[in-house]
Amino acid sequence: MALGNLYIISAPSGAGKSSLISALLEQDNEGKMMVSVSHTTRSPRPGETEGVHYYFVSQTEFEQLIEQNLFLEYAKVFGGNYYGTSLPAIEKNLAQGIDVFLDIDWQGAQQIRAKLPSVKSIFILPPSLAELEKRLIGRGQDSAAVIAERMSKAVDEMSHYDEYDYVIVNDDFAQALADLRHILRAERLTTDYQRTQNAVLINQLLAK
Amino acid sequence: MALGNLYIISAPSGAGKSSLISALLEQDNEGKMMVSVSHTTRSPRPGETEGVHYYFVSQTEFEQLIEQNLFLEYAKVFGGNYYGTSLPAIEKNLAQGIDVFLDIDWQGAQQIRAKLPSVKSIFILPPSLAELEKRLIGRGQDSAAVIAERMSKAVDEMSHYDEYDYVIVNDDFAQALADLRHILRAERLTTDYQRTQNAVLINQLLAK
Repeated sequence: MALGNLYIISAPSGAGKSSLISALLEQDNEGKMMVSVSHTTRSPRPGETEGVHYYFVSQTEFEQLIEQNLFLEYAKVFGGNYYGTSLPAIEKNLAQGIDVFLDIDWQGAQQIRAKLPSVKSIFILPPSLAELEKRLIGRGQDSAAVIAERMSKAVDEMSHYDEYDYVIVNDDFAQALADLRHILRAERLTTDYQRTQNAVLINQLLAK
Repeated sequence: MALGNLYIISAPSGAGKSSLISALLEQDNEGKMMVSVSHTTRSPRPGETEGVHYYFVSQTEFEQLIEQNLFLEYAKVFGGNYYGTSLPAIEKNLAQGIDVFLDIDWQGAQQIRAKLPSVKSIFILPPSLAELEKRLIGRGQDSAAVIAERMSKAVDEMSHYDEYDYVIVNDDFAQALADLRHILRAERLTTDYQRTQNAVLINQLLAK
Protein backbone atom coordinates (compact mmCIF):
# COMPACT_ATOMS: atom_id res chain seq x y z
CA MET A 1 0.00 0.00 0.00
CA ALA A 2 1.17 3.49 -0.86
CA LEU A 3 2.27 5.49 2.15
CA GLY A 4 0.54 8.70 3.12
CA ASN A 5 2.36 12.01 3.26
CA LEU A 6 2.76 14.26 6.28
CA TYR A 7 1.89 17.94 5.81
CA ILE A 8 2.31 20.97 8.00
CA ILE A 9 -0.38 23.56 7.32
CA SER A 10 0.10 26.99 8.85
CA ALA A 11 -1.60 30.34 8.44
CA PRO A 12 -2.31 33.51 10.35
CA SER A 13 -5.60 33.49 12.23
CA GLY A 14 -8.26 34.69 9.79
CA ALA A 15 -6.73 33.22 6.63
CA GLY A 16 -9.34 30.46 6.51
CA LYS A 17 -7.11 27.50 7.29
CA SER A 18 -9.62 25.63 9.46
CA SER A 19 -12.42 26.01 6.91
CA LEU A 20 -10.14 24.78 4.13
CA ILE A 21 -9.03 21.72 6.08
CA SER A 22 -12.62 20.93 7.08
CA ALA A 23 -13.81 21.18 3.48
CA LEU A 24 -10.92 19.02 2.33
CA LEU A 25 -11.77 16.29 4.83
CA GLU A 26 -15.46 16.47 3.93
CA GLN A 27 -14.58 15.71 0.28
CA ASP A 28 -12.44 12.78 1.35
CA ASN A 29 -14.82 9.87 0.92
CA GLU A 30 -12.14 7.22 1.15
CA GLY A 31 -10.82 8.10 4.59
CA LYS A 32 -7.42 8.89 3.15
CA MET A 33 -6.89 12.21 4.93
CA MET A 34 -6.91 13.31 8.54
CA VAL A 35 -5.80 16.05 10.87
CA SER A 36 -3.37 14.93 13.51
CA VAL A 37 -4.84 14.99 17.02
CA SER A 38 -2.63 16.82 19.52
CA HIS A 39 -1.95 16.00 23.14
CA THR A 40 -2.69 18.66 25.72
CA THR A 41 -2.65 19.07 29.48
CA ARG A 42 -5.50 21.58 29.50
CA SER A 43 -8.98 20.49 30.53
CA PRO A 44 -11.57 19.52 27.91
CA ARG A 45 -14.01 22.29 27.03
CA PRO A 46 -17.73 21.53 26.64
CA GLY A 47 -18.24 19.51 23.45
CA GLU A 48 -14.64 18.37 23.14
CA THR A 49 -14.08 14.64 22.78
CA GLU A 50 -11.01 12.65 23.82
CA GLY A 51 -9.14 11.40 20.75
CA VAL A 52 -11.11 13.64 18.38
CA HIS A 53 -10.23 17.18 19.42
CA TYR A 54 -7.29 16.32 21.67
CA TYR A 55 -5.73 13.58 23.70
CA PHE A 56 -6.20 14.98 27.19
CA VAL A 57 -3.36 13.94 29.50
CA SER A 58 -1.96 15.01 32.86
CA GLN A 59 1.17 17.10 33.15
CA THR A 60 3.04 14.04 34.48
CA GLU A 61 1.97 11.91 31.52
CA PHE A 62 2.92 14.67 29.09
CA GLU A 63 6.36 15.05 30.61
CA GLN A 64 6.88 11.28 30.42
CA LEU A 65 6.10 11.42 26.69
CA ILE A 66 8.63 14.24 26.35
CA GLU A 67 11.26 12.12 28.10
CA GLN A 68 10.50 9.19 25.78
CA ASN A 69 11.10 11.55 22.86
CA LEU A 70 7.67 10.75 21.42
CA PHE A 71 6.77 14.32 20.48
CA LEU A 72 7.52 15.64 17.03
CA GLU A 73 7.00 19.07 18.53
CA TYR A 74 5.57 20.46 21.73
CA ALA A 75 5.24 23.78 23.51
CA LYS A 76 4.30 25.05 26.94
CA VAL A 77 1.99 27.97 26.35
CA PHE A 78 1.25 31.02 28.44
CA GLY A 79 -0.71 29.73 31.40
CA GLY A 80 1.40 26.61 31.79
CA ASN A 81 -0.42 24.07 29.63
CA TYR A 82 1.43 21.80 27.25
CA TYR A 83 0.43 21.10 23.65
CA GLY A 84 2.25 18.56 21.50
CA THR A 85 2.20 16.35 18.42
CA SER A 86 3.03 12.71 19.11
CA LEU A 87 4.79 10.71 16.43
CA PRO A 88 3.48 7.10 16.88
CA ALA A 89 -0.16 7.92 16.01
CA ILE A 90 0.96 9.79 12.90
CA GLU A 91 3.19 6.97 11.71
CA LYS A 92 0.38 4.45 12.08
CA ASN A 93 -1.87 6.55 9.84
CA LEU A 94 0.80 7.27 7.24
CA ALA A 95 1.44 3.52 7.01
CA GLN A 96 -2.22 3.07 6.10
CA GLY A 97 -1.86 5.43 3.16
CA ILE A 98 -3.49 8.35 4.94
CA ASP A 99 -2.24 11.89 4.35
CA VAL A 100 -1.89 13.50 7.78
CA PHE A 101 -2.16 17.26 8.35
CA LEU A 102 -0.50 19.04 11.22
CA ASP A 103 -2.37 22.23 12.00
CA ILE A 104 0.43 24.14 13.75
CA ASP A 105 2.21 27.50 13.77
CA TRP A 106 5.64 28.41 12.41
CA GLN A 107 7.39 27.51 15.65
CA GLY A 108 6.00 23.98 15.68
CA ALA A 109 6.79 23.75 11.98
CA GLN A 110 10.43 24.58 12.63
CA GLN A 111 10.68 21.88 15.30
CA ILE A 112 9.18 19.28 12.99
CA ARG A 113 11.36 20.18 9.99
CA ALA A 114 14.40 19.75 12.20
CA LYS A 115 13.29 16.20 13.04
CA LEU A 116 11.67 15.23 9.73
CA PRO A 117 13.29 17.15 6.87
CA SER A 118 11.06 15.33 4.37
CA VAL A 119 7.85 16.80 5.80
CA LYS A 120 5.97 18.96 3.30
CA SER A 121 4.55 22.27 4.39
CA ILE A 122 1.87 24.60 3.11
CA PHE A 123 1.23 28.19 4.15
CA ILE A 124 -2.16 29.83 3.64
CA LEU A 125 -2.20 33.59 3.03
CA PRO A 126 -5.21 35.91 3.08
CA PRO A 127 -5.89 37.90 -0.11
CA SER A 128 -5.11 41.26 1.58
CA LEU A 129 -4.45 42.88 4.95
CA ALA A 130 -7.81 44.65 4.75
CA GLU A 131 -9.61 41.32 4.27
CA LEU A 132 -7.63 39.75 7.11
CA GLU A 133 -8.55 42.63 9.43
CA LYS A 134 -12.19 42.34 8.39
CA ARG A 135 -12.18 38.63 9.22
CA LEU A 136 -10.48 39.20 12.58
CA ILE A 137 -12.91 42.00 13.51
CA GLY A 138 -15.84 39.93 12.31
CA ARG A 139 -15.26 37.31 14.96
CA GLY A 140 -16.59 39.27 17.90
CA GLN A 141 -16.99 42.50 19.78
CA ASP A 142 -13.35 42.96 20.61
CA SER A 143 -11.61 46.23 21.36
CA ALA A 144 -9.36 47.97 18.85
CA ALA A 145 -6.37 47.02 21.02
CA VAL A 146 -7.27 43.32 20.88
CA ILE A 147 -7.75 43.50 17.10
CA ALA A 148 -4.43 45.30 16.71
CA GLU A 149 -2.70 42.61 18.75
CA ARG A 150 -4.26 39.90 16.58
CA MET A 151 -3.14 41.69 13.44
CA SER A 152 0.35 42.00 14.81
CA LYS A 153 0.41 38.28 15.63
CA ALA A 154 -0.90 37.48 12.14
CA VAL A 155 1.83 39.53 10.47
CA ASP A 156 4.43 37.80 12.65
CA GLU A 157 3.10 34.39 11.57
CA MET A 158 3.04 35.45 7.90
CA SER A 159 6.64 36.64 8.06
CA HIS A 160 7.59 32.95 8.11
CA TYR A 161 5.73 32.04 4.91
CA ASP A 162 8.93 31.43 2.98
CA GLU A 163 10.01 28.58 5.26
CA TYR A 164 7.18 26.56 3.66
CA ASP A 165 7.19 24.48 0.46
CA TYR A 166 3.91 25.83 -0.90
CA VAL A 167 1.89 29.01 -0.56
CA ILE A 168 -1.84 29.20 -1.23
CA VAL A 169 -3.59 32.56 -1.36
CA ASN A 170 -7.10 32.05 -0.01
CA ASP A 171 -8.91 34.61 -2.14
CA ASP A 172 -11.48 32.36 -3.82
CA PHE A 173 -12.31 29.54 -1.38
CA ALA A 174 -13.10 26.92 -4.05
CA GLN A 175 -9.85 27.67 -5.86
CA ALA A 176 -7.85 27.50 -2.62
CA LEU A 177 -9.46 24.16 -1.83
CA ALA A 178 -8.68 22.85 -5.32
CA ASP A 179 -5.12 24.09 -4.90
CA LEU A 180 -4.73 22.06 -1.72
CA ARG A 181 -5.85 18.99 -3.63
CA HIS A 182 -3.46 19.72 -6.52
CA ILE A 183 -0.57 19.80 -4.07
CA LEU A 184 -1.58 16.56 -2.35
CA ARG A 185 -1.79 14.72 -5.67
CA ALA A 186 1.38 16.24 -7.13
CA GLU A 187 3.31 15.16 -4.03
CA ARG A 188 2.28 11.58 -4.78
CA LEU A 189 3.82 11.95 -8.22
CA THR A 190 7.27 13.12 -7.16
CA THR A 191 10.07 10.77 -8.13
CA ASP A 192 10.99 10.35 -4.46
CA TYR A 193 7.49 9.10 -3.74
CA GLN A 194 7.10 6.99 -6.87
CA ARG A 195 10.50 5.34 -6.48
CA THR A 196 9.35 3.62 -3.29
CA GLN A 197 5.61 3.41 -3.90
CA ASN A 198 5.89 2.02 -7.43
CA ALA A 199 9.07 0.05 -6.82
CA VAL A 200 7.58 -3.22 -8.08
CA LEU A 201 6.49 -1.73 -11.40
CA ILE A 202 9.74 0.15 -11.86
CA ASN A 203 11.84 -2.93 -11.19
CA GLN A 204 9.80 -4.87 -13.70
CA LEU A 205 10.11 -2.14 -16.35
CA LEU A 206 13.87 -1.91 -15.96
CA ALA A 207 14.56 -5.62 -15.66
CA LYS A 208 14.72 -6.33 -19.38
CA MET B 1 1.76 38.81 -15.20
CA ALA B 2 2.70 35.48 -13.70
CA LEU B 3 5.52 33.76 -15.53
CA GLY B 4 5.05 30.39 -17.17
CA ASN B 5 7.08 27.37 -16.12
CA LEU B 6 9.35 25.31 -18.34
CA TYR B 7 8.87 21.52 -18.29
CA ILE B 8 10.82 18.68 -19.77
CA ILE B 9 8.57 15.71 -20.58
CA SER B 10 10.28 12.45 -21.44
CA ALA B 11 9.09 8.89 -21.91
CA PRO B 12 9.97 5.73 -23.76
CA SER B 13 8.29 5.38 -27.13
CA GLY B 14 4.92 3.74 -26.50
CA ALA B 15 4.26 5.29 -23.09
CA GLY B 16 1.66 7.64 -24.53
CA LYS B 17 3.53 10.92 -24.07
CA SER B 18 2.38 12.52 -27.33
CA SER B 19 -1.27 11.66 -26.72
CA LEU B 20 -1.07 13.07 -23.20
CA ILE B 21 0.50 16.33 -24.34
CA SER B 22 -2.02 16.67 -27.18
CA ALA B 23 -4.94 16.11 -24.81
CA LEU B 24 -3.46 18.60 -22.35
CA LEU B 25 -3.16 21.29 -25.02
CA GLU B 26 -6.69 20.58 -26.28
CA GLN B 27 -8.06 21.30 -22.78
CA ASP B 28 -6.09 24.53 -22.62
CA ASN B 29 -8.69 27.09 -23.67
CA GLU B 30 -6.70 30.07 -22.49
CA GLY B 31 -3.62 29.52 -24.62
CA LYS B 32 -1.49 29.13 -21.52
CA MET B 33 0.37 25.98 -22.59
CA MET B 34 2.47 25.05 -25.58
CA VAL B 35 5.03 22.58 -26.78
CA SER B 36 8.35 24.12 -27.70
CA VAL B 37 9.05 24.01 -31.44
CA SER B 38 12.48 22.59 -32.24
CA HIS B 39 14.92 23.64 -34.92
CA THR B 40 16.08 21.00 -37.39
CA THR B 41 18.21 20.75 -40.51
CA ARG B 42 16.22 17.88 -41.95
CA SER B 43 13.76 18.53 -44.78
CA PRO B 44 10.06 19.04 -44.04
CA ARG B 45 7.93 15.94 -44.50
CA PRO B 46 4.55 16.16 -46.22
CA GLY B 47 2.11 17.96 -43.93
CA GLU B 48 4.77 19.56 -41.76
CA THR B 49 4.53 23.32 -41.32
CA GLU B 50 7.37 25.74 -40.60
CA GLY B 51 7.07 27.12 -37.07
CA VAL B 52 4.45 24.55 -36.07
CA HIS B 53 6.21 21.21 -36.31
CA TYR B 54 9.75 22.54 -36.60
CA TYR B 55 11.77 25.55 -37.57
CA PHE B 56 13.50 24.24 -40.70
CA VAL B 57 16.96 25.75 -41.11
CA SER B 58 20.10 25.00 -43.10
CA GLN B 59 23.14 23.37 -41.56
CA THR B 60 25.01 26.70 -41.76
CA GLU B 61 22.21 28.53 -39.96
CA PHE B 62 22.03 25.82 -37.30
CA GLU B 63 25.75 25.99 -36.66
CA GLN B 64 25.58 29.78 -36.37
CA LEU B 65 22.91 29.39 -33.67
CA ILE B 66 25.19 26.93 -31.88
CA GLU B 67 28.03 29.45 -31.98
CA GLN B 68 25.74 32.16 -30.61
CA ASN B 69 24.96 29.78 -27.74
CA LEU B 70 21.23 30.07 -28.44
CA PHE B 71 20.45 26.37 -28.00
CA LEU B 72 19.36 25.03 -24.65
CA GLU B 73 20.22 21.61 -26.06
CA TYR B 74 20.97 20.16 -29.45
CA ALA B 75 22.11 16.90 -30.99
CA LYS B 76 23.38 15.67 -34.32
CA VAL B 77 21.53 12.45 -34.97
CA PHE B 78 22.49 9.39 -37.00
CA GLY B 79 22.30 10.55 -40.62
CA GLY B 80 23.84 13.93 -39.91
CA ASN B 81 20.81 16.11 -39.19
CA TYR B 82 20.74 18.51 -36.27
CA TYR B 83 17.85 18.92 -33.85
CA GLY B 84 17.84 21.59 -31.17
CA THR B 85 15.81 23.66 -28.71
CA SER B 86 16.39 27.39 -28.98
CA LEU B 87 16.12 29.53 -25.85
CA PRO B 88 14.81 32.92 -27.10
CA ALA B 89 11.45 31.57 -28.34
CA ILE B 90 10.91 29.77 -25.05
CA GLU B 91 11.73 32.82 -22.95
CA LYS B 92 9.26 34.95 -24.90
CA ASN B 93 6.46 32.47 -24.18
CA LEU B 94 7.34 32.02 -20.51
CA ALA B 95 7.24 35.81 -20.11
CA GLN B 96 3.66 35.73 -21.40
CA GLY B 97 2.67 33.32 -18.63
CA ILE B 98 2.68 30.28 -20.89
CA ASP B 99 3.86 26.91 -19.57
CA VAL B 100 6.23 25.50 -22.19
CA PHE B 101 6.83 21.77 -22.64
CA LEU B 102 10.02 20.33 -24.07
CA ASP B 103 9.32 16.95 -25.61
CA ILE B 104 12.85 15.52 -25.47
CA ASP B 105 14.77 12.44 -24.37
CA TRP B 106 16.98 11.94 -21.32
CA GLN B 107 20.10 13.19 -23.11
CA GLY B 108 18.48 16.50 -24.05
CA ALA B 109 17.07 16.68 -20.52
CA GLN B 110 20.55 16.37 -19.03
CA GLN B 111 21.86 19.20 -21.23
CA ILE B 112 18.99 21.46 -20.22
CA ARG B 113 19.27 20.74 -16.50
CA ALA B 114 22.95 21.67 -16.69
CA LYS B 115 22.02 25.08 -18.15
CA LEU B 116 18.74 25.67 -16.31
CA PRO B 117 18.76 23.89 -12.96
CA SER B 118 15.31 25.30 -12.16
CA VAL B 119 13.64 23.47 -15.06
CA LYS B 120 10.99 20.97 -13.92
CA SER B 121 10.86 17.55 -15.47
CA ILE B 122 8.26 14.83 -15.77
CA PHE B 123 8.79 11.23 -16.85
CA ILE B 124 5.92 9.12 -18.20
CA LEU B 125 6.06 5.36 -17.56
CA PRO B 126 3.91 2.67 -19.17
CA PRO B 127 1.87 0.47 -16.80
CA SER B 128 3.89 -2.67 -17.63
CA LEU B 129 6.50 -4.06 -20.02
CA ALA B 130 3.86 -6.26 -21.63
CA GLU B 131 1.66 -3.23 -22.35
CA LEU B 132 4.64 -1.30 -23.70
CA GLU B 133 5.53 -4.17 -26.02
CA LYS B 134 1.92 -4.42 -27.17
CA ARG B 135 1.89 -0.71 -28.01
CA LEU B 136 5.21 -0.91 -29.86
CA ILE B 137 4.09 -3.95 -31.85
CA GLY B 138 0.72 -2.36 -32.56
CA ARG B 139 2.31 0.42 -34.55
CA GLY B 140 3.09 -1.60 -37.67
CA GLN B 141 4.22 -4.80 -39.30
CA ASP B 142 7.75 -4.71 -37.98
CA SER B 143 10.05 -7.68 -37.51
CA ALA B 144 10.76 -9.20 -34.12
CA ALA B 145 14.28 -7.78 -34.33
CA VAL B 146 12.97 -4.24 -34.86
CA ILE B 147 10.53 -4.63 -31.95
CA ALA B 148 13.30 -5.98 -29.73
CA GLU B 149 15.48 -3.00 -30.60
CA ARG B 150 12.64 -0.60 -29.76
CA MET B 151 12.10 -2.36 -26.44
CA SER B 152 15.78 -2.15 -25.66
CA LYS B 153 15.77 1.58 -26.47
CA ALA B 154 12.66 2.06 -24.32
CA VAL B 155 14.28 0.34 -21.34
CA ASP B 156 17.39 2.48 -21.81
CA GLU B 157 15.23 5.64 -21.78
CA MET B 158 13.31 4.44 -18.70
CA SER B 159 16.53 3.75 -16.81
CA HIS B 160 16.85 7.54 -16.48
CA TYR B 161 13.44 8.06 -14.86
CA ASP B 162 14.96 9.00 -11.53
CA GLU B 163 16.69 12.06 -12.96
CA TYR B 164 13.22 13.63 -13.23
CA ASP B 165 11.20 15.55 -10.65
CA TYR B 166 7.93 13.72 -11.25
CA VAL B 167 6.87 10.31 -12.51
CA ILE B 168 3.44 9.61 -13.99
CA VAL B 169 2.38 6.03 -14.70
CA ASN B 170 0.14 6.13 -17.77
CA ASP B 171 -2.17 3.26 -16.88
CA ASP B 172 -5.51 5.05 -16.99
CA PHE B 173 -5.24 7.84 -19.60
CA ALA B 174 -7.71 10.22 -17.90
CA GLN B 175 -5.91 9.84 -14.58
CA ALA B 176 -2.51 10.42 -16.19
CA LEU B 177 -3.85 13.55 -17.88
CA ALA B 178 -5.30 14.79 -14.58
CA ASP B 179 -1.96 14.06 -12.93
CA LEU B 180 -0.17 16.26 -15.44
CA ARG B 181 -2.56 19.08 -14.58
CA HIS B 182 -2.07 18.56 -10.83
CA ILE B 183 1.68 18.96 -11.30
CA LEU B 184 1.35 22.10 -13.43
CA ARG B 185 -0.89 23.76 -10.85
CA ALA B 186 1.13 22.62 -7.82
CA GLU B 187 4.28 24.09 -9.39
CA ARG B 188 2.53 27.47 -9.49
CA LEU B 189 1.96 27.16 -5.75
CA THR B 190 5.54 26.52 -4.69
CA THR B 191 7.01 29.17 -2.45
CA ASP B 192 9.73 29.85 -5.02
CA TYR B 193 7.07 30.64 -7.60
CA GLN B 194 4.75 32.57 -5.28
CA ARG B 195 7.56 34.66 -3.81
CA THR B 196 8.13 36.35 -7.16
CA GLN B 197 4.68 36.03 -8.72
CA ASN B 198 2.78 37.29 -5.68
CA ALA B 199 5.48 39.69 -4.51
CA VAL B 200 3.12 42.69 -4.42
CA LEU B 201 0.60 40.93 -2.19
CA ILE B 202 3.27 39.48 0.07
CA ASN B 203 4.97 42.84 0.52
CA GLN B 204 1.65 44.40 1.42
CA LEU B 205 0.82 41.63 3.92
CA LEU B 206 4.16 41.91 5.67
CA ALA B 207 4.39 45.70 5.65
CA LYS B 208 2.42 46.26 8.81
